[in-house]
Amino acid sequence: MTVLLVAGTTETATIDGISAAGASPDLMAQTPAADAELVAYGRPVFAPFVPVSPDGCPTPALVTRAVRELVGFDVVALDAGLAARTAAPAVRLGSEPGRDVRDPEPVANAAALFDAAAEYARGHPDESLVVGETIPGGTTTALGVLRALGEQYGVSSSLPTNPIALKRDVVADALDASGLEPGALSGDPVAAVRRMGDPTLATIAGLVEGALDAGKTVTVAGGTQMLAAATLVRHRGIDDPFALATTSFVADDDGVDLRAAADDLGVDLRVTDPGFEHTDHAATEHYLAGVAKEGAGMGGALALADDAGVSMAAVRDRLVERYDELVGDERGDADGA
Amino acid sequence: MTVLLVAGTTETATIDGISAAGASPDLMAQTPAADAELVAYGRPVFAPFVPVSPDGCPTPALVTRAVRELVGFDVVALDAGLAARTAAPAVRLGSEPGRDVRDPEPVANAAALFDAAAEYARGHPDESLVVGETIPGGTTTALGVLRALGEQYGVSSSLPTNPIALKRDVVADALDASGLEPGALSGDPVAAVRRMGDPTLATIAGLVEGALDAGKTVTVAGGTQMLAAATLVRHRGIDDPFALATTSFVADDDGVDLRAAADDLGVDLRVTDPGFEHTDHAATEHYLAGVAKEGAGMGGALALADDAGVSMAAVRDRLVERYDELVGDERGDADGA
Repeated sequence: MTVLLVAGTTETATIDGISAAGASPDLMAQTPAADAELVAYGRPVFAPFVPVSPDGCPTPALVTRAVRELVGFDVVALDAGLAARTAAPAVRLGSEPGRDVRDPEPVANAAALFDAAAEYARGHPDESLVVGETIPGGTTTALGVLRALGEQYGVSSSLPTNPIALKRDVVADALDASGLEPGALSGDPVAAVRRMGDPTLATIAGLVEGALDAGKTVTVAGGTQMLAAATLVRHRGIDDPFALATTSFVADDDGVDLRAAADDLGVDLRVTDPGFEHTDHAATEHYLAGVAKEGAGMGGALALADDAGVSMAAVRDRLVERYDELVGDERGDADGA
Repeated sequence: MTVLLVAGTTETATIDGISAAGASPDLMAQTPAADAELVAYGRPVFAPFVPVSPDGCPTPALVTRAVRELVGFDVVALDAGLAARTAAPAVRLGSEPGRDVRDPEPVANAAALFDAAAEYARGHPDESLVVGETIPGGTTTALGVLRALGEQYGVSSSLPTNPIALKRDVVADALDASGLEPGALSGDPVAAVRRMGDPTLATIAGLVEGALDAGKTVTVAGGTQMLAAATLVRHRGIDDPFALATTSFVADDDGVDLRAAADDLGVDLRVTDPGFEHTDHAATEHYLAGVAKEGAGMGGALALADDAGVSMAAVRDRLVERYDELVGDERGDADGA
């Protein structure tokens, strides 16, 4: 079993108030590279820090890592356009971070990313692939492609209070900048990413298409960015079944009716609840308050833990252990008190 | 246990008659990328072919892969300057293939490669690392750095008849082009690589230094290129013990007294004989005739098999199975008859 972690960055993420994935634009640009290292090695190697939100909520990559230590799946990072170097073993599919979604063409290489990702998935020896993502600001670009495709699904947020009005404004500006009416790119998902998306969306959609082409089982693991990726796949005219695995934090988010959307798209929804209310610690409590929610394959990793018979209690214990080791006891105590 | 496979290319490899690692310069440029995919996935993904010599000798990467399937070690490719894209999960340390060793400065980024590799090895979580290489033409650049450092060790070849006179001529021309007398760069190994080497040598030496710095056990796995890398480490003034693991094909090569060199350098030599004379097949027989001999971590992988109690007969069976599957029965039968 291999988890493919699609990592990228965009200038969209630097819009003030858009993302919780890093305390400042400079740090945010490091987050996907750091996430990939955490999942690969259990600690940062080139990255200057472990991503935590300003109040100490750990990146979902730490949950994915905790599960990986218990379950033992393989992980490969797919570099769809990282802004920082990473020590994580990565397949380089793109070399350009996405530009601001309010540029006319924020993902100029969308078609090339899509094709390379499809080729990669077709050639991968595994029969079953799980696809995660790490890209700050990703729900805004997800909203962008959904609107370009003419779909009304909502998006979640890595912040407790979804800055949805801001996202809608940004997407409206982005549609204007691209000279598009909502729905103008229905049925043309590669163009929707090129003009309204981010590099990870092209890559994820390509991976799903390539995997399905080759007869593989594929699960997209994440929240509303994966909903957008699934929508892209359906707008390619592909009807084959695949699954979306996410966390209870996204499924419970009022900003999006994930079950209805999954039904509408014909995607099998799997929701896993890590039971974070049973652990009183900074590593878990911020998730209960709605921070982060999902990312870096967290929902897919939790599903793999469940499949392997690993209890959520064991996952939480491992998460706390890693948090204390990497972020520090002091922070864990102070925030968890 | 992790095997780090350092992969790169140079224009030196395109000198006619230098290397067996690919039938033509175009194909040779693909070999390291293909080797990394083979070890990672057991088959080519982006690579257009499985590297075999013109007479059907499989790349040593296939042996490393066969052992990996039996032993289960992790592998990470380190891209020190590949000329072709690779689907192998890789850490990108350099982006420039090496130039012709007869250029004044064939590895302009030698210092950066060395530093990044050392940082990577220091940060890697494993206590024990094995370092292999895949770079066509690597023994010629190995000879180049040995002469620049003033060491008289010989080098082996991936060809049955070592084109040593050609290599010596190339190295003499390279010294002239760099304005160097033999031994002029003794004690300055980074400059020796920059002016007379290839990108993998800087990377391997940096990995060894970083691993030793961090108190890890490290084994360089390969033939005379690893002897050159070990020499670079010693010329950095580092006296810590480390090991060199190679195949019996290199150890038995008349072109180099590997045992004497290893003794001289204070490096623990470990030689593993895969017993290829016991298997009558195209996958093994060319090695008995002196083709390939070593590469892509083969000697280190064989040592890991031995450590894990996996028999060489099991390694040979797996190698034959993979060869028949990837290269084809016909070739196996025709050449093995």
